[in-house]
Amino acid sequence: MSVTAAAGFEAAGIACGIKDGGVPDLALVATADRRPVTAAGVFTTNLATAAPVQVTREHLRDGRAAAVILNSGNANAATGEPGRRDARRMCELTAHELGCAPEDVLVCSTGLIGYPLPMQPIEAGIPKLVAALGSDEAAGQAAADAILTTDTVRKEALETIEIGDGRVAQLGGMAKGAAMLSPAMATMLAVVTTNLAVERDPAQKMLASAVDWSFNRLSIDGARSTNDTVLLLATGSVEADLRAGASALGHVCTTLSSLMANDAEGKTKVALIFVQGARTPDDASLAARAVANSQLVQCSLNGGDPYWGRVLSELGASGARFDPEKVEIAYHGVVVCRNGIAVDHDADALAHVMQLPNIEIQCDLGAGTSHAWVTTTDLSHAYIDENRGTS
Amino acid sequence: MSVTAAAGFEAAGIACGIKDGGVPDLALVATADRRPVTAAGVFTTNLATAAPVQVTREHLRDGRAAAVILNSGNANAATGEPGRRDARRMCELTAHELGCAPEDVLVCSTGLIGYPLPMQPIEAGIPKLVAALGSDEAAGQAAADAILTTDTVRKEALETIEIGDGRVAQLGGMAKGAAMLSPAMATMLAVVTTNLAVERDPAQKMLASAVDWSFNRLSIDGARSTNDTVLLLATGSVEADLRAGASALGHVCTTLSSLMANDAEGKTKVALIFVQGARTPDDASLAARAVANSQLVQCSLNGGDPYWGRVLSELGASGARFDPEKVEIAYHGVVVCRNGIAVDHDADALAHVMQLPNIEIQCDLGAGTSHAWVTTTDLSHAYIDENRGTS
Repeated sequence: MSVTAAAGFEAAGIACGIKDGGVPDLALVATADRRPVTAAGVFTTNLATAAPVQVTREHLRDGRAAAVILNSGNANAATGEPGRRDARRMCELTAHELGCAPEDVLVCSTGLIGYPLPMQPIEAGIPKLVAALGSDEAAGQAAADAILTTDTVRKEALETIEIGDGRVAQLGGMAKGAAMLSPAMATMLAVVTTNLAVERDPAQKMLASAVDWSFNRLSIDGARSTNDTVLLLATGSVEADLRAGASALGHVCTTLSSLMANDAEGKTKVALIFVQGARTPDDASLAARAVANSQLVQCSLNGGDPYWGRVLSELGASGARFDPEKVEIAYHGVVVCRNGIAVDHDADALAHVMQLPNIEIQCDLGAGTSHAWVTTTDLSHAYIDENRGTS
Repeated sequence: MSVTAAAGFEAAGIACGIKDGGVPDLALVATADRRPVTAAGVFTTNLATAAPVQVTREHLRDGRAAAVILNSGNANAATGEPGRRDARRMCELTAHELGCAPEDVLVCSTGLIGYPLPMQPIEAGIPKLVAALGSDEAAGQAAADAILTTDTVRKEALETIEIGDGRVAQLGGMAKGAAMLSPAMATMLAVVTTNLAVERDPAQKMLASAVDWSFNRLSIDGARSTNDTVLLLATGSVEADLRAGASALGHVCTTLSSLMANDAEGKTKVALIFVQGARTPDDASLAARAVANSQLVQCSLNGGDPYWGRVLSELGASGARFDPEKVEIAYHGVVVCRNGIAVDHDADALAHVMQLPNIEIQCDLGAGTSHAWVTTTDLSHAYIDENRGTS
């Protein structure tokens, strides 16, 4: 149900020795015929982009690619020109083994920032990786496993579009990102493959939109990492309505981002911050993000404490324009604040919803008709413990 | 050494019963002759301002005030029109007891958001509070004690300017703010009094500048609360060079903000993030704030881990314009990153500085000549424990 689901793709994952103890750390996704297909990418907005992000951007200029090589255990970020040389070398060695052009290979890395990439195990690993390529589900799973860092579960998603005559288009995706919580350390990566026919520009548009409605709505600590990358490869063997394709791509990305939220470092609760009644979509987004990124709101979630005063304060500091005395705030439908002040509510019902593993905090700004949502998690001792040291 | 240091001021602090257990919760600062003097104020930029902030802004329109009444234990925020009535009533009762106009009384509250102010103990307390007014150091201390919330130490500061002929101008300040860390819950308040002669407009300018260089450079969790207020009252009995006055006011505010950082909730380390080599002062500020507000950098500080990759990533995501491959990062002078990549350094020296209670993280963007700094703290289990519940 992953990157090998769509016809025309193969994948592999092996342990090459970047990580200790035989943990999988090198993955490959390639077209079965080694020929380039339509490719699109969305990248981190961080100014300090990692070397693989820079090289992948170059290689994507023609909107085509035949393969993606990915490693975990080292981000190849803050590594300067030597880092770019290493990223290019990964593409060259992979292209050599596959029999395609180096410019048709994309590259992603995830792990610690600021350490030179250990090229010796990677160079030795690439021939083994290519030899391990397969088109079955196990091969896709091996690739999905090899990109994980602090993740505790494999992250895959699949959507199928019925074309008629029994034919189907498939979109299969894999991702890593327990560390959206910790993207500076381990970053978020995703690769989606499909047999849909789609040209370069609509593919890019479709991917950007899907990312905006999925990964970009997941905000654990507000950090945007050096390595965040989402890639789409489309062979084009099946013609289908592009709106259906865009919708299916959106579902794949949403599934993957939900898997990330549920596997976020140290989380005990997932919260959906839903803002409506905003003057503009931008205001709605600003407001939802401010609440989601609040350490104090995250601490309240950790304690199961419905302290809506912090939610109101974050809305007020968000930059969104509204009258604080028209705001309504509810936890999972239990209204605790109306017209900006406390209202009587069923305390037992509220206590019950605060113990749910998935909580929705609903904020109506009373200023318009726009809405937005952002998913976040609570802030726990375990998050601190996971992030207070790198060793 | 507090708000009673300058001639012409009296203060008091009592336990009126807003808080349980006889903990001081009501404070007053007033001119000795009950006549209004030059007054200036700087307030939170949060849209959801607390009732006392709204009322104090109204009362400050003429740039004069005779007294400030302050309570802890309840923020009187998100309380709507009843909250404004309560804030005005506090001013009226205080004015009645003092024999001045209600518009000459300013009001501040700090504590939980969203709960009606308990007016009964406050109304009963105000006559006792006025009766307790004194001009000695103990009276100033009583006032400083009564505004504390989760603070563990009293926060006072004093600067003296020699005028010649043995005459002196004094600036004395008190503040609360363990909860800059948690400003949505408890907020930051400060009152500074002086016998300096200064008109309304220069007083406002002087105060805004002092706040910008002190309280606004302290950022623990990026939150801007509903109640933040800094007030200056100046009797005008002593003429002095205004530049000396501005400098002394800056020192008072810096001392108070240092006391806040050192008493921040759950902190085990205080860190100064110093950014230089920025293209503009705004870029330097953006960059310093992004690093200071990073949960991941704060976790690293908690663990004493010099993981500069997170610092570089936050600089890159800050919005400041620079070339990541010209960046230099040092911990307390130990350079760990130069030209954007790792450099050899003395590991023992680095391990030593990471254990210091006060750490300076120095970032040179290599893009210009502007600099800025922001003080922050680490993120600890104790911070979460302090903020996961309100009871």
